[in-house]
Parts: sequence; C-alpha cells; structure tokens
Amino acid sequence: MKLKNFLVLLGIVLFSTSVQAGRVVRDSIDSRVLGEVRHFSIYLPDAFFVQQERHFPILYLLHGLSDDDRAWTQKGQMERVCDLQMASGEAVPMVVVTVEAGGPDIKKHWNGYFNMEGWQFETFFFEEFLPAVEKKYRCGGDKNQRAIAGLSMGGGGSVSYAQRHTDLFSSCYAMSAWLRQDDHLQSRGHLESDRFKILAEAVHNLDCVRFVAEADKERCAELRTVAWFIDCGDDDFLLQQSLELYGQMRLHGIGAQLRVRDGAHTWEYWHTALLQCLPFASRNFSH
Amino acid sequence: MKLKNFLVLLGIVLFSTSVQAGRVVRDSIDSRVLGEVRHFSIYLPDAFFVQQERHFPILYLLHGLSDDDRAWTQKGQMERVCDLQMASGEAVPMVVVTVEAGGPDIKKHWNGYFNMEGWQFETFFFEEFLPAVEKKYRCGGDKNQRAIAGLSMGGGGSVSYAQRHTDLFSSCYAMSAWLRQDDHLQSRGHLESDRFKILAEAVHNLDCVRFVAEADKERCAELRTVAWFIDCGDDDFLLQQSLELYGQMRLHGIGAQLRVRDGAHTWEYWHTALLQCLPFASRNFSH
Amino acid sequence: MKLKNFLVLLGIVLFSTSVQAGRVVRDSIDSRVLGEVRHFSIYLPDAFFVQQERHFPILYLLHGLSDDDRAWTQKGQMERVCDLQMASGEAVPMVVVTVEAGGPDIKKHWNGYFNMEGWQFETFFFEEFLPAVEKKYRCGGDKNQRAIAGLSMGGGGSVSYAQRHTDLFSSCYAMSAWLRQDDHLQSRGHLESDRFKILAEAVHNLDCVRFVAEADKERCAELRTVAWFIDCGDDDFLLQQSLELYGQMRLHGIGAQLRVRDGAHTWEYWHTALLQCLPFASRNFSH
Amino acid sequence: MKLKNFLVLLGIVLFSTSVQAGRVVRDSIDSRVLGEVRHFSIYLPDAFFVQQERHFPILYLLHGLSDDDRAWTQKGQMERVCDLQMASGEAVPMVVVTVEAGGPDIKKHWNGYFNMEGWQFETFFFEEFLPAVEKKYRCGGDKNQRAIAGLSMGGGGSVSYAQRHTDLFSSCYAMSAWLRQDDHLQSRGHLESDRFKILAEAVHNLDCVRFVAEADKERCAELRTVAWFIDCGDDDFLLQQSLELYGQMRLHGIGAQLRVRDGAHTWEYWHTALLQCLPFASRNFSH
Repeated sequence: MKLKNFLVLLGIVLFSTSVQAGRVVRDSIDSRVLGEVRHFSIYLPDAFFVQQERHFPILYLLHGLSDDDRAWTQKGQMERVCDLQMASGEAVPMVVVTVEAGGPDIKKHWNGYFNMEGWQFETFFFEEFLPAVEKKYRCGGDKNQRAIAGLSMGGGGSVSYAQRHTDLFSSCYAMSAWLRQDDHLQSRGHLESDRFKILAEAVHNLDCVRFVAEADKERCAELRTVAWFIDCGDDDFLLQQSLELYGQMRLHGIGAQLRVRDGAHTWEYWHTALLQCLPFASRNFSH
Repeated sequence: MKLKNFLVLLGIVLFSTSVQAGRVVRDSIDSRVLGEVRHFSIYLPDAFFVQQERHFPILYLLHGLSDDDRAWTQKGQMERVCDLQMASGEAVPMVVVTVEAGGPDIKKHWNGYFNMEGWQFETFFFEEFLPAVEKKYRCGGDKNQRAIAGLSMGGGGSVSYAQRHTDLFSSCYAMSAWLRQDDHLQSRGHLESDRFKILAEAVHNLDCVRFVAEADKERCAELRTVAWFIDCGDDDFLLQQSLELYGQMRLHGIGAQLRVRDGAHTWEYWHTALLQCLPFASRNFSH
Repeated sequence: MKLKNFLVLLGIVLFSTSVQAGRVVRDSIDSRVLGEVRHFSIYLPDAFFVQQERHFPILYLLHGLSDDDRAWTQKGQMERVCDLQMASGEAVPMVVVTVEAGGPDIKKHWNGYFNMEGWQFETFFFEEFLPAVEKKYRCGGDKNQRAIAGLSMGGGGSVSYAQRHTDLFSSCYAMSAWLRQDDHLQSRGHLESDRFKILAEAVHNLDCVRFVAEADKERCAELRTVAWFIDCGDDDFLLQQSLELYGQMRLHGIGAQLRVRDGAHTWEYWHTALLQCLPFASRNFSH
Repeated sequence: MKLKNFLVLLGIVLFSTSVQAGRVVRDSIDSRVLGEVRHFSIYLPDAFFVQQERHFPILYLLHGLSDDDRAWTQKGQMERVCDLQMASGEAVPMVVVTVEAGGPDIKKHWNGYFNMEGWQFETFFFEEFLPAVEKKYRCGGDKNQRAIAGLSMGGGGSVSYAQRHTDLFSSCYAMSAWLRQDDHLQSRGHLESDRFKILAEAVHNLDCVRFVAEADKERCAELRTVAWFIDCGDDDFLLQQSLELYGQMRLHGIGAQLRVRDGAHTWEYWHTALLQCLPFASRNFSH
C-alpha cells in the first residue's frame, strides 16, 4: 500500500472513530440544612451514557476560597484531563463532582467546608449532598468507590473530611492545602471580614496538623485505612503547612505520598496536579 | 525557633515576595498588504517592564483553523506556562506572540498563513507584522533571537515558514501539524467552502513533507541550521503526517526530535506541548 | 517542638521503618523440550515473603538479542523500578520474571522466543516454563493476572505471544520491538550466521505487522481483548516497525497506546520504559 | 514509495548514523596535599574528541559515603544520561567528573569533602584537583563554565563548596543531601568509628543550614549569585534537612528550586535526579 493511501485510510478511520469524551453538567440541590439552593458541576464519563446500568466510583473535587463549583471546569480544565486519562486508561471511568462552597466576595459570601455559626456546610455535605448525588448519578455507595481531593481551602477540606470520615473515603489528594490557621493570618488586613473570620476560626478549630499530632493509637489505625497524597508547589505560600502535615504523618507511622513540584498557588499547578490525582484515586478504588 | 513561628515568618516573607508574572496585551496592526486591521496577543515577561532597555528573544506561536490570536491565551493557558517556566528558569524570559490568522466560520473567514488569491498573509507576516512587532516590543532582530511554533494549521504554518526562511528562525516546534493536503480531504463534505478550498490548495502547494522529500544538498544544508521538534498525539487524526515529515527528515540526514505522547487533537495536548516548547526554544536561542 | 528535635525524631522513625524492598532470585528449570537447563531471574515483591498465602499477578519481561535473563536486573535496574513503584502504589505488588532466551554469540548461541528447527522455545515457554513458574511462585493462573512485555527481540516476542495467545495475557507492552524481518536485514553482513539466520526467518514468518494486516473479524475481536502499549525511541533504528504496527492496529479498530520518546536502542530507554510499563500492567490486571 | 522500501531505506540511514556517545575515562592524580594518589572518573562528550580545540563547561558530580569515583557510572548510569541528553540538546556538551572522596569501610577509609585532621580533602580539591582537571581536559576556567552537584554526603559537599565559593560555581544541585549533623546521629552505634566521627564533626562544623541562618546581607548577596536546586525523596531519611535549608533560603530571599519526588535514599532516585540536574546546570552556564 502506498504511503499516501495509507494516510487517507487512516484519516477516514480516525475521523469516524470519535475520541471518547465525557460531559460536564451543572445541576443544583435545594438544601434544607442551608436553607438555599446550592449548585454543583458534575463530570459524567462517556461510559455513563453508554452503559445505562453501570455504577461508577466518584471523586469529590473541592474548589478553593472565593470560587464556586465551576472553577475546576473553567479554570482548571478538569474536563480535558478526565477525557484524556479515561481514554488512555490512566484513570478509570469515574464521576467527578465539585459542589459550590464559596463565593467571590469573602467578606459577604459564605466560603468553607465546615460547620460554622450560620453555615452548616459539613452537615449539608454529608447528609444531603453526598447521598443525593450518588443516588442520582449511579456512583459511590461505599468507601471503596469514593475518593476526595481539593485545592487550597478545598485541600484542607478534603483532608479534614477524610481524617474525620475514614470510613467514607478510600483516598485523599490534597493540593496546596490550607490545613491550619494561626493568629497571624487572622489579623492580616485584607482578610478582615466577618464571614472570613468565622471561616478562619473554623479552620483553626479543625487544624489538620494538630489532628495527627494528637492522634492516639486508634485514630492512627483509622487514618492508615485511607491513601494520602500531599502535593504543594515550592513557591506556594502554604508549603510549610503541607510539610508539617507530612512530617506528623510520618512520625505517627501513617503512610503518605509527598510531592513538591515547581510552582506557586496557581491554576497551572492544580491543573497538572489533577493529572496525578485521577490515577491515584483510580488505584485506590476497589471492587 | 518553634515550628509555628517559623511558619508565620515564612508566610510573611513569601506573601510579600510576589511571584514574577508577565502580562498578555492585545494589540493590532493596520495592514496595507491585507487592507485591514489584524490583532495580535503578545506575552511580555516580567523583566520586560523592569528592565526598560533590555532586548528579548521572541517566539511566534501560531494558532489553528477557525481560531484567532486569543486562542493560545484563552484555551491554551499560554500565560500560565510562560509565568511558570520563566520563574523557574526552564524558559528564558522571552516575548511570545500570536497573530490573528483566522476566524470561526471557515467558509466565510480567511484562515491560513500562506499567500492565496485575495489573502496575502505570508507577505503581511514577513514584511509588515514581524518587523513591526520586533521594533515595538524590543525583541527578535535575528535568527538567534527568534523561534516559531504552532498547532494544527499553525503547526504546518510554522514548519513551512521555517523551511522557506531558514535564515530567520533558530528553531521550530510543530504540534499536531497539518503539513500536507491530498485530494481526499479536500472533497470531504463538511470542509466544502470557497475560502477553505483556497486554503487547502495552498497547503497542498506548500506540502511540507514533499519539501523535504525533494530537497537537494543545498536545501538540506539550510534545513540543518534550524532545530526541529515534531510533537503529535497518538490519537490525533493528523499523526501520520508528522511521522512522514520525520521519516523524510531522517532520510535526508536532517536532525529532528519526534515525540508521540498520549492524546488527540485537543487543547490539553497543546497546553502540555507548550511546556516542552518553551524550553526547546530557549535552548536554541543564542547571543 | 524545636526543629532540631523534630528532625531527630523523624530520623529515628524513618531509620527504623525500612523501605519495602523485593528480591531478585535466579532459578532454573530443566527443560525436556529443549533438552537443557534454562535459567530465569525472578523478582519477588516484599509482600511475597510477608503474606505466605497470597497469590500475585505476574509480568513476563522478555530480554533482547545476545542477552540473557540477568539483563533486566543488571543493565535495566529492574529491581529498583519495581521497589520504587510498588512502594508508592504506582504498581501493584507483582512477580516479574525474565527467562533466558539467548546468549552473547548470536552465531553460536540460540536466541529467540519462537519455535525453530532445533530450538522449540515457544513450546518450552508455554508448556513447561509458564506453568512451572506460576505454580512455584504463587502467581498468574489466568489472563487477568498475567501481563507480558519485552525489549527489541523480546518486544517482538511479547507482541507475537500476546497476538497468538490473547486468552493468556491481559496486556502487552512492547519496547523498541523487533516486529518483522525483511530480506534486507537478513543479508546484512554482521548478522550472517546460521543460528541468527534461523531466528530471522522465524521472525519473518511470524511478522507481527502482517498478523494484524491480515486479521479477519474474529481475530480482530480477540486482539481487542488485550491492552496494547507500543513504545519506541525517536532515534531507534526499529522505530518504523512500531509505527507500522500501530498504524495497522488503528486501521483495524484495535485500541493501542503509542509513545515515541527521546532516545535510541539503549538501556536508558528501556529503564524509563519500565516506569510506564509496570503501572500499565497493573491497571490491566483484574480480580 | 512502498512502506517496506521506506523502512529499508530508513534502516540503512539510521544504522550508518551512529548516535553520538561520549566516553568515561578513569584517571588519577598524585596529590601532594593528601600524600597519595586519588582516582577520578571523567565523562568526555562526543564533541570533545571531534573538536580538538573546543573548550567545555564542567560539572563536578560528587559521590556519597562509602563509595568512590566509579559510583556515578556503575550505579548511577551517569554515562547513559549524559549521552541521551546531550544528543537531544536537553543538556549542553559538558565534561562531568567524579573524584574519589571515600571508601567502602567508613571506619577505616577516609570519606568526606572537607578539611579534617589528617585529611585535607578540600585543600586538595580546590588547589590541586580542580586546576589540574580543567587544564588537562579543556574545561571550566571560571564560574560561568562550572557547576557542582552531588548526592547524600556529596550533596552536602556540593552545597557547602558552593556556599563558601560562590565565585567558583554558577549552579549547585543537591540530591538527598547530608547538610548538617547533630549529636544524635553521631552517637548511633553503627556509625561509631574514628574516621567517621571525624567526618561527622566536620559536617557539624560546616552546617549548611546554619550557614544560611546566620548569613548577613553581604553573604546573602553572594549566595544569590548561584542558582540552587534542592531535590530529595519523600521517603528519604534526610528529607527534613533539605526542607530546612530551603526554608532558610526563602527566609533570606535567596532564590532556590525545591523538588520532593517519589523515592528514598536510593540510586533510582539519583539516576532520575541526574535527568533534571544536567539541564539545570546547562541553563546556568553562560559564555
């Protein structure tokens, strides 16, 4: 066969074989706990539409401060990474969901994953959101089919959720995570606001490093049932927090992966983090 | 020093040391050759603003069919990659520019980098655009300070420009390049249109593979003065064209890098290609 | 806690927690088919010694021309890659085995994975070696727990074995594979030898590209049950063969991964290929 | 042209174009300072033999405790990485040298890069070795053409040398570096020995973290003239030391790259570190 014809034939075949691609849908849930509607953006893999009976694992992918559920799609190009890695098999077909846990004006909008006075987000997440999304979108169901990850405020959210719900998540991937809050940061001028102060206090109270530092034998045993991955850029202002968490985990004999790559607190970092996160979550799902 | 204080101090220092970041500006040029105004998007590195006398190398980064100069910034996150790699030193500080060479409706809008009846883009590029941009933005000036790259239609554009102007570019990085056009693709239904037909004919006439296949000794010697990098995804419908170009270059003893990575004809591919492209261009600049 | 004490404590913990490490054992089998003893080098993961009842998946990792079973360990640093990736979870704990299928003097020593006049290696492999090693080392047992890979002559061996035994292997990773043999190579001077000529003829007869080119519907369906990965360096003299195999597989709608990375026909290439091979095999094992 | 012929032609061309390859030579120097002969292993790039007048940059690549100058070649496959990256242009052609600074029995053999009672290695290095090797092998000559790197004990050696000789090295790449020594490690049983004790005391006296912690303005300014890269595995028992050094450098506004990748104190880690080290050194050479 001549090269030219070979090319033509190849072109036809490939053109007619469209590459597998999932879809991101924006949906919402009317929360009784929060007393308002919250949005979520959900990636449904190609197989979700083809195999109508199939059940999928799910990754809860948390966004950061002053963002909302669209951030991972619009700024982090989450859909592209999912399509790429599920097509090549580096990630298993899974549902990926980001729920709206913040807003642009941190003085006025509620931001955060924890229960605070006037904002019971964690209750909403576990009692309303998680069951509803897993039922509607044929996914999750137990620890072996559930992973969590997040960036910055969502990185801290993912670690704290997984620390206190080791029975619910098989793995946790924390990116540039905001894991603790000392007095200094609370008093920085540009963060002065009621709703941000309340959030900062909640982060202070649920300090993820202290949670490990104070862990007794039983808690350590529980923490060992989750696969942990800590990823933070060398130019990130929160780097030290990730290093402290990792140090405490090693001291307590809790296995974890640590990566410090090139970068700062930016979407370029989180985009490339996702390329490691999806395979990591995939490896730790089981049947 | 206690860990907590160490953190606080570190936080202060890092917060006050903002990470280096360039800026993307949209500018335009009134072309006599084309008889209309064309836009261009230009990345100016942090150092451009700090060192007012300094001269920079330039990368011409071409966009693809039915896109315009904003594509690399808006869909390819060019600015993020530039900031990251210039901060870490993987890329040298350089100017990166994308010029508007297309429009969304390929039936109605002109697309393409070559001279065609009614659209003398190549003349515009070399006689008007290149000198104007290098003068206004303190960059380029000669082969050693100039590189070219592009995706798809722009991949073919970059290769053809560098093939026929070996005295102007030190390196060429072709992504998922559209390098040649046979009869088959011209007759595919959804590409039927006057302006696209004209483009396809121009691509056919400037076939980049044939250009090497027919090269005599002198042309081969010229082609060896440019550093070549060919990068195409394993699921890309244009893969075979990249393989053919590489094969011909090897046959003619013209050094080139070839990479086939995971992916299709997508922005996820080109985004990660840029991570290799900037260091490659940097290595091949000289003083 | 002071930094210094923190370090000391960390040091103690880490020193006493030795990193998981497997072991490479050299063993042998007395073959009735071949009428002689053949050696094999086998990597047994850390868990093999700790969990005495546990059953493991197995990767058959084939060596190249003029080498023997020790090559992957001594030149390819296979043990290091296995230890690294099984410790981090990128690869699942598995047994990796290389069987002696060659010798240094290609004129005098038998080399090759196929049945030839006077050297029934393929019969030996499937009837004697595979059952014996899987029984003795608690591994394999069926397709879902078995993968194959190899470099150069072993790359061709792995592809041909997997092509003709789709019921036995879940995945195949071919590195710099020698997949076919035309007349030209047979007549090259430095390869002139009886035993090499016999091998070249066997490779010619089992041409892996032709095997796909001539595949009917049924054969294609079988080939689709194996996960394929083709990996070859851009400076490798055998690159074209990998490209042809991939082209034919795409033409026949048989999914495959293709990678062309930087490098030639060298151990540096195969060492880094292994870093992709073990996770690929792991992803395609199932329970 | 038919595919088969294309392959054949390609094969001929590639076979006749042998890939560029350097050579590792073992040489020695009779030291008056040490009163004995010391060996060194030196990589000379392909271009060294072809261009007999050309001058090259040099990388001093230090080995670790209980090893000697052959370690980087025999265990770290230094030659393979050099060949690969110089062929593709990721590293510039350079000379790479490892000098014998240790021996297998740490109780009996001298190990270490510093001046100690009875072992004036640092004097030997700067007054005898460096000038001799740069003269004999047409390399180095000034800071812009000189880089230093090392692993473990050699990682500490490279950092301390570059800290105290900022006028001599343009860059420093520290792998899994032994940067400081507290009392605790000195008293660990298996390290008890006279010569090791002397080394440990020297490391304690030249503490690389303290060197930065105590830096005044002038010293900081000098340290900023070197490009620093700190690379250590997440499972390395010395990780905390690298983190401390980086933390101090950030506190003092001294730019540095930090990477924490997957791995422990192993040759697999250092081998892949070298893939980043050579391009880093290359980027920081200048003319």
